[in-house]
Amino acid sequence: MKDYNRESLKIHRKLSGKINIDLRAKINNLDDLSIYYTPGVGAVSNYLHRNPEKTNKYTWINNLIAVISDGSAVLGLGNIGPKAALPVMEGKTMLFKQLAGIDAIPLVLDVHQPKKIVEVIKAVAPSFGGINLEDIAAPTCFEVEEILKKELSIPIMHDDQHGTAIVTLAGLINATKLRKISMDQSKIVIVGTGAAGTAIIKLIHLYAPKASIVAVDSSGIISKSRSDLNKYKKKLLKITNLNNQDGLLEDALKEADIFIGVSKPKLLNESLIKSMNKNPIIFAMANPEPEIYPNLAIKAGAFIVASGRSDFKNQVNNALAFPGIFRGALDNKVNQITDEHKIAAAIQIAKLVKKPSQDQIVPSIFNKDLVKNIAKVIT
Amino acid sequence: MKDYNRESLKIHRKLSGKINIDLRAKINNLDDLSIYYTPGVGAVSNYLHRNPEKTNKYTWINNLIAVISDGSAVLGLGNIGPKAALPVMEGKTMLFKQLAGIDAIPLVLDVHQPKKIVEVIKAVAPSFGGINLEDIAAPTCFEVEEILKKELSIPIMHDDQHGTAIVTLAGLINATKLRKISMDQSKIVIVGTGAAGTAIIKLIHLYAPKASIVAVDSSGIISKSRSDLNKYKKKLLKITNLNNQDGLLEDALKEADIFIGVSKPKLLNESLIKSMNKNPIIFAMANPEPEIYPNLAIKAGAFIVASGRSDFKNQVNNALAFPGIFRGALDNKVNQITDEHKIAAAIQIAKLVKKPSQDQIVPSIFNKDLVKNIAKVIT
Repeated sequence: MKDYNRESLKIHRKLSGKINIDLRAKINNLDDLSIYYTPGVGAVSNYLHRNPEKTNKYTWINNLIAVISDGSAVLGLGNIGPKAALPVMEGKTMLFKQLAGIDAIPLVLDVHQPKKIVEVIKAVAPSFGGINLEDIAAPTCFEVEEILKKELSIPIMHDDQHGTAIVTLAGLINATKLRKISMDQSKIVIVGTGAAGTAIIKLIHLYAPKASIVAVDSSGIISKSRSDLNKYKKKLLKITNLNNQDGLLEDALKEADIFIGVSKPKLLNESLIKSMNKNPIIFAMANPEPEIYPNLAIKAGAFIVASGRSDFKNQVNNALAFPGIFRGALDNKVNQITDEHKIAAAIQIAKLVKKPSQDQIVPSIFNKDLVKNIAKVIT
Repeated sequence: MKDYNRESLKIHRKLSGKINIDLRAKINNLDDLSIYYTPGVGAVSNYLHRNPEKTNKYTWINNLIAVISDGSAVLGLGNIGPKAALPVMEGKTMLFKQLAGIDAIPLVLDVHQPKKIVEVIKAVAPSFGGINLEDIAAPTCFEVEEILKKELSIPIMHDDQHGTAIVTLAGLINATKLRKISMDQSKIVIVGTGAAGTAIIKLIHLYAPKASIVAVDSSGIISKSRSDLNKYKKKLLKITNLNNQDGLLEDALKEADIFIGVSKPKLLNESLIKSMNKNPIIFAMANPEPEIYPNLAIKAGAFIVASGRSDFKNQVNNALAFPGIFRGALDNKVNQITDEHKIAAAIQIAKLVKKPSQDQIVPSIFNKDLVKNIAKVIT
């Protein structure tokens, strides 16, 4: 494998910033100044004061997303704080622009309490056309997103939750089709109940309400007998583990058809895979090191393996979803990204793979129809 | 005069945003993705977590200024709120880029109490290399800037205060030279004690500590006998009106050499100018309509007239100062913009007019040496 770490450090140092501001008109003389700035701009501000609903038409916010993080759960690096999170957020703004033509800026926050984060984001919200929350740790991210969605009237999505869930569902749609099983009749074990795991559970439940879902965290199966569950994990009991199973991962995996990991490296091994139903579907999405490497999973009998990595087949990558979701929300003036939008987006992503195979259950993020096809269902 | 209002509205509607995000590299394939985004970017974030002082070297914040306003005092339009302020802030970011090559983004705030504004700006500060406060009403702006300068270690400047003061001082340096009077031996009447007026008074006092300065607000001369003064106006009494003069503008103007207006239209008239010392210097900077129109002031005996307008000679325009100030602060890693910087910048601006005349006491904002010459004294 190529040493991306070394190369990335080198290129970042050389570039000193991956994005910059570009002007859509030039100010070359006093006449230009009087039109784009004072005194002429005063008429525009005055007009928007009287017609606030026209702000989008007259400013860049019609195409502008803020990528906001407090740096509390950055990639697999954990709580590294706002400044260290900046290169990731800048990278994300590159994807917004390159894949969907959306202007996006990184905004990192030096506050970490849910209420403080909400307060700050509400205060800056008039500056943007939408908000992509990023790399905020669970359970803070749940509370922040919930309140903001209620109190702001611009599209808001925490990508670590919903982007991951959408692309996971898209991959599962094609994987179960190939495997000739119905999601509704499957037993699905989801390991990791942070931002991504929780959202994946909810979205699968919405898409396939009869699926038997079992959630597992670092202490074992999420069950009624556990006394250590926070309110978000307790809520999961309404849609998971309806058979009241207790135990550890190995207990959960018995008779399971599908394993979805958003947990930690090397959690899964060959004998655990062998203990599942035959020809299981394995999504090992811990990053950068998966719960099990694809070659080992295949050797143990996995029918299909997906991971979060670009150097393996079947990369479950958020970048398949968020550019199209926000492109659609901005273009179609959608102020709330709903569960229906997420499921519709997953179906569009799955559909783009003309002939799904064990090596290709999701399209390339560079597929030319991707953003367009998702955007058209965000209405 | 050209109808800039109409043309500005038309062009703003057509452009739907005056700035956009540009990429300094492209992400065309999975290899690029792995370098600019995951997994490679993880190494950069990890490195910055261990070496936070290197963040500037690896992200766009080394060249990034936030133009921040709560929309409480926008141009002459007053408190029109954050959204309506956006076109002005976008225009300002154009000037930052075009004149000084600085990336700047508009950030408008939906909070207006000084403590709330400070809290929000402190929270987002790690996202930027510097902060240009803009169009925040007095006295809120004083408190906000004072606290932020103490608590953040990036350059911060409220341009309505200091940009205006710097360019006013630059103009006065050349005007008094032409008029062959010393600022230190002049009586200077400053009308308007909001953001700009207060900063002008302080900067002139620093440059010419012996100048006799009299400040006037809408209730008359700021004097010890006034019981309606807020703490910022009270503080002005330490450096203004040392003769304890009471009265109105007409009283202040007696024996005055210089009138500086940052107040309201038509405050000044020919007979008031005639009541001043002979050949007075008149800076009538109310925007867009000045305290007196230049032709009338000249007719009444003014030696030099300056205004804030681009369609008259001697435009006292903040854009002469802020691009160079921030260019210097970013390039020279200056974390505090000090009074010494402001005076040095004013001297540089004044110097750029090779042969000052009654028609030209300040250079053009398009002068090629302007930003460079100011930047080199911000050290």
